[in-house]
Amino acid sequence: MTSPFKTIGDFLRQHDKFAVFAHIRPDGDAYGSTLALTLCLRAMGKDVLACNADGMIERYRFLPGADTLVATPVEAVEADRKIIALDTADQIRLGKVFHGWKRTPDVNIDHHISNAGYAPLNCIIPDVPATAEVLYELIRAENLPFNADIASNLFVGLSTDTGSFRHRQTTARSFEIAADLVRAGADPTDLAQQCYSSFTLGRLLLLREALNDTQFLDDGKISYFHLNNDVYTRTGTSSEDTEGLIESIQMVKTVEVAFMMEKTDEEFTRVSLRSRGKVDVQQIASHYGGGGHRLAAGIRSKLPLAELEAGVIADIRKALAA
Amino acid sequence: MTSPFKTIGDFLRQHDKFAVFAHIRPDGDAYGSTLALTLCLRAMGKDVLACNADGMIERYRFLPGADTLVATPVEAVEADRKIIALDTADQIRLGKVFHGWKRTPDVNIDHHISNAGYAPLNCIIPDVPATAEVLYELIRAENLPFNADIASNLFVGLSTDTGSFRHRQTTARSFEIAADLVRAGADPTDLAQQCYSSFTLGRLLLLREALNDTQFLDDGKISYFHLNNDVYTRTGTSSEDTEGLIESIQMVKTVEVAFMMEKTDEEFTRVSLRSRGKVDVQQIASHYGGGGHRLAAGIRSKLPLAELEAGVIADIRKALAA
Repeated sequence: MTSPFKTIGDFLRQHDKFAVFAHIRPDGDAYGSTLALTLCLRAMGKDVLACNADGMIERYRFLPGADTLVATPVEAVEADRKIIALDTADQIRLGKVFHGWKRTPDVNIDHHISNAGYAPLNCIIPDVPATAEVLYELIRAENLPFNADIASNLFVGLSTDTGSFRHRQTTARSFEIAADLVRAGADPTDLAQQCYSSFTLGRLLLLREALNDTQFLDDGKISYFHLNNDVYTRTGTSSEDTEGLIESIQMVKTVEVAFMMEKTDEEFTRVSLRSRGKVDVQQIASHYGGGGHRLAAGIRSKLPLAELEAGVIADIRKALAA
Repeated sequence: MTSPFKTIGDFLRQHDKFAVFAHIRPDGDAYGSTLALTLCLRAMGKDVLACNADGMIERYRFLPGADTLVATPVEAVEADRKIIALDTADQIRLGKVFHGWKRTPDVNIDHHISNAGYAPLNCIIPDVPATAEVLYELIRAENLPFNADIASNLFVGLSTDTGSFRHRQTTARSFEIAADLVRAGADPTDLAQQCYSSFTLGRLLLLREALNDTQFLDDGKISYFHLNNDVYTRTGTSSEDTEGLIESIQMVKTVEVAFMMEKTDEEFTRVSLRSRGKVDVQQIASHYGGGGHRLAAGIRSKLPLAELEAGVIADIRKALAA
């Protein structure tokens, strides 16, 4: 994939009205990237709609500009409002409401290797850890507005998608960028406290329930737990509170693949998978119509939970034996 | 405090035999700093004894050079072997065996604000997050040997003492240093996996026990749990496995102070305290002869557990009300 910063930069300068999107069930990189680009474009004097299928979840309300992000409007926006999709490997993940507009994004900026480039203008750099890192390079290469609020949003995107600079794909460049973001005014410890130490008590209880449910198979190579509405009710939490839970059971050194199964509606079962390195969980997810990265992937399937569970375990075993 | 890199650099160049130490109950910064300096001095052709009162614990055996670190020898070393204390605020924390030698360290390199400078040569920089960062600045300022193994040890010191670049005192400079260490050959994701994702199954069970015991007081401003020999036996763990446990209960946003109480012998009760920022836990620890930092401190006391627990809670309440 090419990374045509100049082309994207020109496009942003040439147009006046934008809508910035990211994927459903947004994480720190989705929100951080959306708000960083939104604030950057606004600083250029543009009229920007920042939205997401899920609106703004509580956990990321501390992000600068978060109060201006809205749930995706049901009505399609004006034809001259250019649409920018961020951090979204597959256009379908922009959400039902967006697809009701029957439009294709004009620009597609991402770091997911599975992103096939669904927009007329694509900027996909698959070997960087976060879309925020792609945006940082774009902003700096094109001399676009850059300030403490933009830096803070990019920092959160970079920090959360690297698991606080721990995961694969974190490079010397990622640390250099972090240093530059901090110099620009991002407060690393404040932001880290907001990202990683601002859980509700319910989230702690949810972790405890997850640990109590966790099973280890095959000498601890596979570990997993289940979540459902009962668990959420007992702990006063929701699906929004699951970020990082799976990493807690992945910390055991024997674990090659960790996953969690979530059953909260009649129709779908969700599976989130993490790999230590040997197993490509994106390949496993793809058997069930899912996607993601080599080391982190997800499935949303209509298969019955038990069948999906057995299938995923069988697939992991096959991959481990390969 | 001054940070006389030149003086320390000259001292290292002028002498031929060294013993490098850090504090008892060593953490990633203690081991990382000890091994980084040891490898650096050996690369200068020096004869270096790397030791610690606790020897090398399992959890940090992945560090380059770890196989050459020994438990502090009972016999005092030769008079011409210069002694370097790292990351040790109070000389007493070098351990009983060392004090049996009846010698004072020749060099004292540290980042603890409470370090009063107990050696003839002191290099204490209290506003940096890790002794590894002090050593990095010394090595670079004095052009001492620097390679992938040294960088990896420094990276682990910096990463673990900042909680993977999350805690207060992490600065743009810390990220710059991390970038330089990675360029020098430290693998950030491999090292992070070793530091944060290589727990035993027992450690996960220990976390579960800790969460089950955790109490929240005063609308969740105070949280704490207990550990003792029974818990360690049930989970197949030991005191070595507690690193990071307290941070798990500190992640709840209401929590201003989190602490854990550990009772594993007849004589002493240990308390580890963490603060979100409002409360200076070093002050609280100092009431009981303990020490540390403003946001992380520890106590080792002969008071009965219940009395110490009540006292610490009362002190935290007083500090919260101030």
